[in-house]
Amino acid sequence: MRTKNLYHQRVQALLKAIKPECEACLIEDPIDLYYLTGLTLSTGRLLVGSKTTLFVDGRYTEMCQKHSPFPVRLLNTPLEEIVKVARLGFDGAATTYQTYEKYKRALKKSVALVSLDAPVVQLRAVKDPQELQALKKAALLGSKGYDYACSLLVEGISEEQVAMELEIFWKRHGACGSAFAPIIAFGENSSMPHYRSGARKLRNGDIVLIDIGVTLNHYHSDMTRTLFFGKAKPELLAIHKIVQEAQERALQQCKAGVTIGTVDAAARDYIAKKGHAKHFNHGLGHGVGLAVHELPVLKNVPPYASQKLQKGMVVTVEPGIYLPGIGGVRIEDTVVITEEGYVDLTKRPHGVRVV
Amino acid sequence: MRTKNLYHQRVQALLKAIKPECEACLIEDPIDLYYLTGLTLSTGRLLVGSKTTLFVDGRYTEMCQKHSPFPVRLLNTPLEEIVKVARLGFDGAATTYQTYEKYKRALKKSVALVSLDAPVVQLRAVKDPQELQALKKAALLGSKGYDYACSLLVEGISEEQVAMELEIFWKRHGACGSAFAPIIAFGENSSMPHYRSGARKLRNGDIVLIDIGVTLNHYHSDMTRTLFFGKAKPELLAIHKIVQEAQERALQQCKAGVTIGTVDAAARDYIAKKGHAKHFNHGLGHGVGLAVHELPVLKNVPPYASQKLQKGMVVTVEPGIYLPGIGGVRIEDTVVITEEGYVDLTKRPHGVRVV
Repeated sequence: MRTKNLYHQRVQALLKAIKPECEACLIEDPIDLYYLTGLTLSTGRLLVGSKTTLFVDGRYTEMCQKHSPFPVRLLNTPLEEIVKVARLGFDGAATTYQTYEKYKRALKKSVALVSLDAPVVQLRAVKDPQELQALKKAALLGSKGYDYACSLLVEGISEEQVAMELEIFWKRHGACGSAFAPIIAFGENSSMPHYRSGARKLRNGDIVLIDIGVTLNHYHSDMTRTLFFGKAKPELLAIHKIVQEAQERALQQCKAGVTIGTVDAAARDYIAKKGHAKHFNHGLGHGVGLAVHELPVLKNVPPYASQKLQKGMVVTVEPGIYLPGIGGVRIEDTVVITEEGYVDLTKRPHGVRVV
Repeated sequence: MRTKNLYHQRVQALLKAIKPECEACLIEDPIDLYYLTGLTLSTGRLLVGSKTTLFVDGRYTEMCQKHSPFPVRLLNTPLEEIVKVARLGFDGAATTYQTYEKYKRALKKSVALVSLDAPVVQLRAVKDPQELQALKKAALLGSKGYDYACSLLVEGISEEQVAMELEIFWKRHGACGSAFAPIIAFGENSSMPHYRSGARKLRNGDIVLIDIGVTLNHYHSDMTRTLFFGKAKPELLAIHKIVQEAQERALQQCKAGVTIGTVDAAARDYIAKKGHAKHFNHGLGHGVGLAVHELPVLKNVPPYASQKLQKGMVVTVEPGIYLPGIGGVRIEDTVVITEEGYVDLTKRPHGVRVV
């Protein structure tokens, strides 16, 4: 268990961030609650303010009384009784419309409800040293899983079998689970960026796309490599070369202070120049942390394009080219943004690999 | 892949259910989208109406064009262009406040937005025959996992080790994963209903609480047994007897047409009579299906208490008694509600078991 002090610091940072808009706020998202308290709760509410308090139901009271860094009360305590501020924030990006209506009914008319834009998720975008350690460990186990998955590639094995054995490997090595269902795509299936592994068996000459991530101690890894089984089709080899160069160009832009638009464009413009603009139909990447997809969003569209990378952000850089019915190539690393550039957490080569 | 007809039937049922309030609605929850389309999407939007249409982003278009039972369009198609009704519903229990505001901005002023109360989740509470088959299979694998977990109980094994080996067992037998982190609680840890397995090692004389569920082909199982390792403490044996009788009394009430309050009270009143009212600090159970916790909610409070069980509902019945610092007992089965009573899917004995 990390020190209680860490959670008080995070709560102070949140209070500072929301101060221009309100004096206190309600947080209910389970991942945000973990970030702010270190506790795993399926349901709960943190009132963040001058007297931060955690509200849980009977299932969690004993555990929380032992481990909560903040005073604990029952979840059914009337909001009206505990909210003493004039402006109360809530997370508009996580709170359902029904919960918002419930707040409105439960609070005195004099309390103004303020919709905040994912205030904790925004804080979570920049990682502290403890988190970077956790992400490094997750990435290491993720990459070991990649090596293991590659070792399973023999003619006739199915996508599902590789996915299953990989998940068992990770479990045996201490993982909580997979960050997402492993994407093991053989041949033409690789052209679907969010394919789900199926019964398709590996054949000589197949392209193999492996997009995988593990969850270790609440933090995630995310990586993709695309390799060739037996022999490589020239058309797919050619797009591998383009994607590899596009990723390299994007990585070269990764550095604190550089806008996301600049990083995305470095890959996208190169892919477009090679005639594949419409075959790269997703963003360049995303933040990775307590969620496998979190802030920042690496897309060359407003409002993201003008946002700047910050020191301590952990992001994926994953350009791809997909030829429907033929196959696709994606190369993805998870990197930490630094003052000087980036640190690669995935630590696996990018070049063409024929197995 | 199930027939496209099934999804059209479900969409028709949804349209019928929302008709008093609106002519069309937007559904975005990924589980609801799976229920209505058979497709696994992390992001997407189904416009359910006279011309039901699925909206997805570039990552999913190829896959959806192949498999969607409804026409597919791009997610960034302006809402104003596609919504042709005067009253448009959305799921107030799943839609975030920000998304609601986005809808409001995107729609013509003449369109009234109607907050619906979990319309798809409400439909999902009553299972169709395909779903009952899937739940039966999930429960069977869940119970096999229970047998396997019991076989692992030897002095010195940790809670985490049992949990890990169980998850690997399920994976090897075709599971997608666990329905929730397995709760393997030894000794005094069993008094926390939502405990997470830890490093605690099994000792002679420990009570062992096993609350586990598996995910198989999108459907879940959920069961709990509490057993005794080596010898049983008389105090805990006594509460096991009470919980077992309380569960039996609740199960005897399970039948289409009976109110949830009646079923919950059958267990709760008996536990109270035995002097443990405050030691049973959670609801009696919950629905199980595409989510491991879904409707109905088996709690003796409004609005649930007056709701009636319906034929085809699949629910857990899980009374418990928890003595903080000493230990707890919970017994949980998943059952299908029928006209005559119930069908037990868990199929494991309820009696005291010393291993």
